[in-house]
Amino acid sequence: MSLESIAALAPAWGSAEPRRRGRALVAIADALDDAAGELVPQAQAETGLAEGRLCGELRRTTVQLRLFAEVAAAGAFLDVRLDPADPDFVLGPRPDLRRYLVPLGPVLNFAASNFPFAFSVAGGDTASALAAGCPVLVKAHPGHPKLSDMTADIMRGALVASGMPADVLGLIHGQDEGVEALRDDRIAAASFTGSLQAGQILARIAAERPRPIPFYGELGSLNPVVITEAAAAERASQIAAGYAASVTGSAGQLCTKPGLLFVPGSFDPREAFAGIGSQPLLHPGIVGGYSRRRTEVLGTPGVRVLLEGTLDDGGAAPTLVETDLANLARHRDTLLAEAFGPLSIVVRYDPSEGLAEDLEVLVEGSLAAGVHIGQDEDSPWLRDVVEVLRERTGRLLFNGWPTGVAVTPAMQHGGPFPATTNPTTTSVGTAAIARFLRPVTYQDCPPALLPEPLRDDNPWGVPQTLSAAGLSARWGEAVG
Amino acid sequence: MSLESIAALAPAWGSAEPRRRGRALVAIADALDDAAGELVPQAQAETGLAEGRLCGELRRTTVQLRLFAEVAAAGAFLDVRLDPADPDFVLGPRPDLRRYLVPLGPVLNFAASNFPFAFSVAGGDTASALAAGCPVLVKAHPGHPKLSDMTADIMRGALVASGMPADVLGLIHGQDEGVEALRDDRIAAASFTGSLQAGQILARIAAERPRPIPFYGELGSLNPVVITEAAAAERASQIAAGYAASVTGSAGQLCTKPGLLFVPGSFDPREAFAGIGSQPLLHPGIVGGYSRRRTEVLGTPGVRVLLEGTLDDGGAAPTLVETDLANLARHRDTLLAEAFGPLSIVVRYDPSEGLAEDLEVLVEGSLAAGVHIGQDEDSPWLRDVVEVLRERTGRLLFNGWPTGVAVTPAMQHGGPFPATTNPTTTSVGTAAIARFLRPVTYQDCPPALLPEPLRDDNPWGVPQTLSAAGLSARWGEAVG
Repeated sequence: MSLESIAALAPAWGSAEPRRRGRALVAIADALDDAAGELVPQAQAETGLAEGRLCGELRRTTVQLRLFAEVAAAGAFLDVRLDPADPDFVLGPRPDLRRYLVPLGPVLNFAASNFPFAFSVAGGDTASALAAGCPVLVKAHPGHPKLSDMTADIMRGALVASGMPADVLGLIHGQDEGVEALRDDRIAAASFTGSLQAGQILARIAAERPRPIPFYGELGSLNPVVITEAAAAERASQIAAGYAASVTGSAGQLCTKPGLLFVPGSFDPREAFAGIGSQPLLHPGIVGGYSRRRTEVLGTPGVRVLLEGTLDDGGAAPTLVETDLANLARHRDTLLAEAFGPLSIVVRYDPSEGLAEDLEVLVEGSLAAGVHIGQDEDSPWLRDVVEVLRERTGRLLFNGWPTGVAVTPAMQHGGPFPATTNPTTTSVGTAAIARFLRPVTYQDCPPALLPEPLRDDNPWGVPQTLSAAGLSARWGEAVG
Repeated sequence: MSLESIAALAPAWGSAEPRRRGRALVAIADALDDAAGELVPQAQAETGLAEGRLCGELRRTTVQLRLFAEVAAAGAFLDVRLDPADPDFVLGPRPDLRRYLVPLGPVLNFAASNFPFAFSVAGGDTASALAAGCPVLVKAHPGHPKLSDMTADIMRGALVASGMPADVLGLIHGQDEGVEALRDDRIAAASFTGSLQAGQILARIAAERPRPIPFYGELGSLNPVVITEAAAAERASQIAAGYAASVTGSAGQLCTKPGLLFVPGSFDPREAFAGIGSQPLLHPGIVGGYSRRRTEVLGTPGVRVLLEGTLDDGGAAPTLVETDLANLARHRDTLLAEAFGPLSIVVRYDPSEGLAEDLEVLVEGSLAAGVHIGQDEDSPWLRDVVEVLRERTGRLLFNGWPTGVAVTPAMQHGGPFPATTNPTTTSVGTAAIARFLRPVTYQDCPPALLPEPLRDDNPWGVPQTLSAAGLSARWGEAVG
């Protein structure tokens, strides 16, 4: 397995009937499910994550593969548009135009440390790229190298068993090897899930290649959540419990962890954290990064410690601090950065003043943002807050917590920079497939040379959108 | 009119019912049509383009505005996806998820010189961004500053007449002013039509901002066209006539001009160029650039002059040279670059040998690529050529010429680098609207706070795609 052999398979994998690719994805999902008994213990050994969490994550990963199998087979992702020739076209005779989406080519996927299944070798980026018709080269995360090898072996075996070449999926290890692959002219697009710093470096490499390529980086995020006065009055302890679970789940090592909680008056979530002890962190790199960020936050003037927490080689117990809007603004360079671990910042605001204007200045692009409101609560104050959050996030949630991302057609996992390097796409949910496709139009192509999705007899049975001839002279009339 | 006031209008313009924005686009189209008597002479005076061509271009521009008015009003561009809450979701209860596309925010549009209407102040980038819900700041091209002012004034007047604020559309002049705006944090996306060099500089500025933004550059292109032996045998003089018209139309100053023609045997297109005299070029910058490129091409070893052509301050008469595949490969750095003017390179190939392998090495990303084939021609040789061209272009055309781009749903005007800075989008056709939108998902939002397109009662009547609850456990089963 080499980039050479992966690239050589791009035309065949990309032009195969999508239903065949779907069958291969289902075979991969079956094989991974069958191997859960080996995969989960290996993941536990390398990441320190809990068995229950890892079983759920593997299940999510194989459900995701099955969902993308359906997306591929349904064919709507091809966005087929047929404009028959139109001799009466308003700007002069129009040729026959047939447009669909084709795979970009070999995709390089940088795996994440914190989801050894769902954002790693067999994760969402791989599933969506394979469904789109792109062979995938995964750069393994050094946090779980053996699990990565095991996963790739199982996937490659399942590909062969389903009649496809094993080399549609490749795996490499090493930072230098990853950068080398990113610079390789045969790589047509890259995806990444990880830190802001690493993501920015890789995005720049992708942009500065002789032939630049699309780079989809899902970076860090603060995921601010606002608690309104009414919500706090109605159910403070329930909200505190949800917050504590969301901050400390997976030891806070989730890109959707609520890192900023805006609270009114005397709201105090401390009690909900009682009894949440130390949990292991994923690997020494994360311990080091979290330690630096935690020390910075704890040492910031005007920051009051609610829970000091702990951090040692054995893991981390939650750290909670509080500050106010003015101090957050004063120390924004220190405080408004992700701490990848069980740390969150409680920010007190005065409900008698407008919060939206502060959020406008303080909140940056985020994967998710939330607001907890009272029963039937509605006001200009609330609507302003909702509007400001919406402008800065990919997912706006109500009376809930950002961790836990459903894999469905309507999911959006992305957002304005610095949440991602590209706000127009998602890395979770069926729309993720669009990242690895580009449009091509066939003009006046003889029927015998048309690719299957563009043919009038539509042998693959994909959805085709027809723009009938003869309508163009009236464009715009129906709008008034 | 300032960036400040344009940015201030983004929320209102972006959240207005799309049909209302559509009405404003129709009002703009009407006003521009009404002003044709002033606009066309001004365009003639500043660009030297012929009256007939300019009248057609203005018509194309206003038809395009009407088409985008329809796209806005129809609402399908919002890509609304509703996933109702699902207590039986396979990975645990799923929240209510509702996703649609929202405007990115203020768009900066760098206008082109060669289409003073269709790729300028009121052109496709402006029309698609306005339809998407983004206010637009146009950086005027210095080749037609007065026409740009006139166009903007008419558009702003039509906006006011249709009940919208004039500052939804702004205009600035000057290279430094354009770069300053591109660096301004209030600009959320930028579009550009122009040279590879300028486009790469601007793309880098957009990527290196503290907050990087999407940049859509439509750059230069060689648009290779292959003539098969059978096509040449059937209709050499007809093909030569089409080639001559496509190379010399608008004095060759089109990004879709066929810059490379691959021909078999003794095919000689010279006669078709007889009688095509000198035509004015757009402005001194283009004269200088074309002069440099033409001198380079004429001075390249192994290049034989078919028609020397002319170039002086009065304009340019067509220049035609020929070479062979080996010499093209030898001097690829000189020959494989766009010459923006009436110059094209004829490349002879040996039909008894495979052409596809040469094209694989010689052809770079191109806006369009074409092949002229014989009646019912089909062969592995031809299919290989078609496949190689398709991998390198956004539009693949048969028995036609790349100039003349229909504005329709199935049009694709884009392609792999260096044709564009982003192969996943188009700058012509209805799909162009997607460049200026980003997805947002509302999770468990109370009905009263939902935006109109996501509401169950669907007050705007937009298409909504529903993913019913209860299906997830069977994902993948239907694929086999």
